[in-house]
Amino acid sequence: MPPLTRGALTFPSPQSSQISPYLPPPSLSQPQTPIHVTLTFATSLDSSLSLSPGTQTLLSGPLSKSMTHYLRSRHDAILIGVGTALADNPSLNCRISGVGGYGGEGLKGQPRPVVLDPRGRWEVGESSKVMQLVREGRGRAPFVVSRVVLDGGRRRLLEECGGKVIVLPAAQDQEERKRIGWVDILKALREEGIKSVMIEGGGAVINDLLRPDNIRLVDSIIITIAPTWLGKGGVLVCPDERVEDGVKVPVERLKDVQWIPLGEDVVLCGRPQQS
Amino acid sequence: MPPLTRGALTFPSPQSSQISPYLPPPSLSQPQTPIHVTLTFATSLDSSLSLSPGTQTLLSGPLSKSMTHYLRSRHDAILIGVGTALADNPSLNCRISGVGGYGGEGLKGQPRPVVLDPRGRWEVGESSKVMQLVREGRGRAPFVVSRVVLDGGRRRLLEECGGKVIVLPAAQDQEERKRIGWVDILKALREEGIKSVMIEGGGAVINDLLRPDNIRLVDSIIITIAPTWLGKGGVLVCPDERVEDGVKVPVERLKDVQWIPLGEDVVLCGRPQQS
Ligand SMILES: NC(=O)c1ccc[n+]([C@@H]2O[C@H](COP(=O)([O-])OP(=O)(O)OC[C@H]3O[C@@H](n4cnc5c(N)ncnc54)[C@H](OP(=O)(O)O)[C@@H]3O)[C@@H](O)[C@H]2O)c1
Ligand SMILES: NC(=O)c1ccc[n+]([C@@H]2O[C@H](COP(=O)([O-])OP(=O)(O)OC[C@H]3O[C@@H](n4cnc5c(N)ncnc54)[C@H](OP(=O)(O)O)[C@@H]3O)[C@@H](O)[C@H]2O)c1
Repeated sequence: MPPLTRGALTFPSPQSSQISPYLPPPSLSQPQTPIHVTLTFATSLDSSLSLSPGTQTLLSGPLSKSMTHYLRSRHDAILIGVGTALADNPSLNCRISGVGGYGGEGLKGQPRPVVLDPRGRWEVGESSKVMQLVREGRGRAPFVVSRVVLDGGRRRLLEECGGKVIVLPAAQDQEERKRIGWVDILKALREEGIKSVMIEGGGAVINDLLRPDNIRLVDSIIITIAPTWLGKGGVLVCPDERVEDGVKVPVERLKDVQWIPLGEDVVLCGRPQQS
Repeated sequence: MPPLTRGALTFPSPQSSQISPYLPPPSLSQPQTPIHVTLTFATSLDSSLSLSPGTQTLLSGPLSKSMTHYLRSRHDAILIGVGTALADNPSLNCRISGVGGYGGEGLKGQPRPVVLDPRGRWEVGESSKVMQLVREGRGRAPFVVSRVVLDGGRRRLLEECGGKVIVLPAAQDQEERKRIGWVDILKALREEGIKSVMIEGGGAVINDLLRPDNIRLVDSIIITIAPTWLGKGGVLVCPDERVEDGVKVPVERLKDVQWIPLGEDVVLCGRPQQS
């Protein structure tokens, strides 16, 4: 076992073995394997991700933080929406003991950060946390999935350290909201050799993925719930309503459900019905 | 043990002993003991109680139903808001094997139904489920807590079988919304000899109780969460925001937290910080 390094985390093995069945198999070696998609986030009891748009709220306890990094160690990439990149200035690396930069060789086990930024709003620069970690050898350079080519400065910054901008068209049926289709996003990532992606938020990304036409692309869902109410005005996980034959019905119900108490929080693991 | 009777339920003892510490002690015999208040309800992952106002949605599984009846068997009264009385035409009795009407003597162990109906909107009649159960000897007659005296017909119906209307004034500081203060409601129930009440919903009642000035009146909170999303437009548990020194803060966080997996659902037990 590699020595513990500054800031390195460990995750207790009883819980990790309960969560393991929901994660991509350790070696997805077949070249044709479709990409494994894990959707994961933490909410309050009133289904809020944060107290208000543009702010970060610490919801879950220290064990949940270790779990997030354990999950990251088991995926090739982490994806977030540009709203989260702007609000949180996130690190998007993996700090589990034994991965590259935390006791391991090179960047072994470090996931690729991916920012979904259709309009190129993310002002990534030398001082972004994710770029600092790249310089320290503790994280990979981000990929930006966009409808536009970023300006030369940001593009060069990314490309010089192994990152890139992946330009994709707006989804035809969603022209108005200028979304990029998830089939296209996942296909582009797979073409980059990414065999598993953990989608971490925020609200708009999660609610978009919970739509009936997108949820079938998700293999596993892992949600941490903290025993707190944030109250009105938060960033909500609450998908659009679903109507069948004129009657409102639940949007989605998980199958293969496991509830795992973790400190003061609970972790819910499951799979979408249609996956 | 009394014989099983039509419709009688049992609740597994491993879970009931985990929940027991959150319930009123079996014999609250001191005449001065303050009333024990348990707030309990079932939500979806997106914190909905039902798909839309005025409709009832089955959220949780069969074990959760048994749990609700176990909880009812441990309280002197069950309270709901008039919105729930109108939407659900609820039974509001206890069907745990061994209580009165389900294998037990008389009405032993049957809680008193209480409907919070400040404007007298509940059209309780012979055909209301709660009144049918009274006739069958399987439940107690309801108390209605109101700001108005109900009309003679409804009042007589209630009084003839041991129910009543408790008239209370609107809370002074809440004149506009014509609420009744929870201190007054609980005091009136205690004066009726009720030593424990389980408040079951719906949305308006729960959100009112989660306000910082009311939550301190609650002793325990027991929430069932089902692994489903109902989507926008549901009846939400989401209290008003809380602002301290100009900064938005979480409304409430539970202490003494226990998460108890129950079938496909999870049960969260806890106590408010200030209780
Ligand atoms: N508790 C947690 O687990 C957690 C996790 C992550 C984030 N958060 C919180 O969530 C908040 C941010 O959430 P958010 O809803 O504001 O932002 P977000 O979901 O991170 O990003 C939303 C943006 O991503 C782009 N986007 C989303 N879906 C897209 C699609 N299908 N195709 C193309 N672009 C798409 C859009 O960008 P354009 O508007 O430019 O088109 C959209 O506005 C922050 O407060 C953060 O702290 C919490
Ligand atoms: N999943 C669950 O566990 C669960 C449990 C119960 C109910 N439900 C669902 O919840 C929905 C009903 O919820 P709801 O919000 O419409 O109704 P509700 O909370 O049952 O009743 C609301 C009404 O109660 C009265 N009220 C509330 N607080 C009061 C106070 N402090 N003082 C005086 N009166 C007060 C008001 O009556 P006035 O408007 O007349 O002033 C208010 O409109 C239904 O769909 C039902 O199926 C679900």
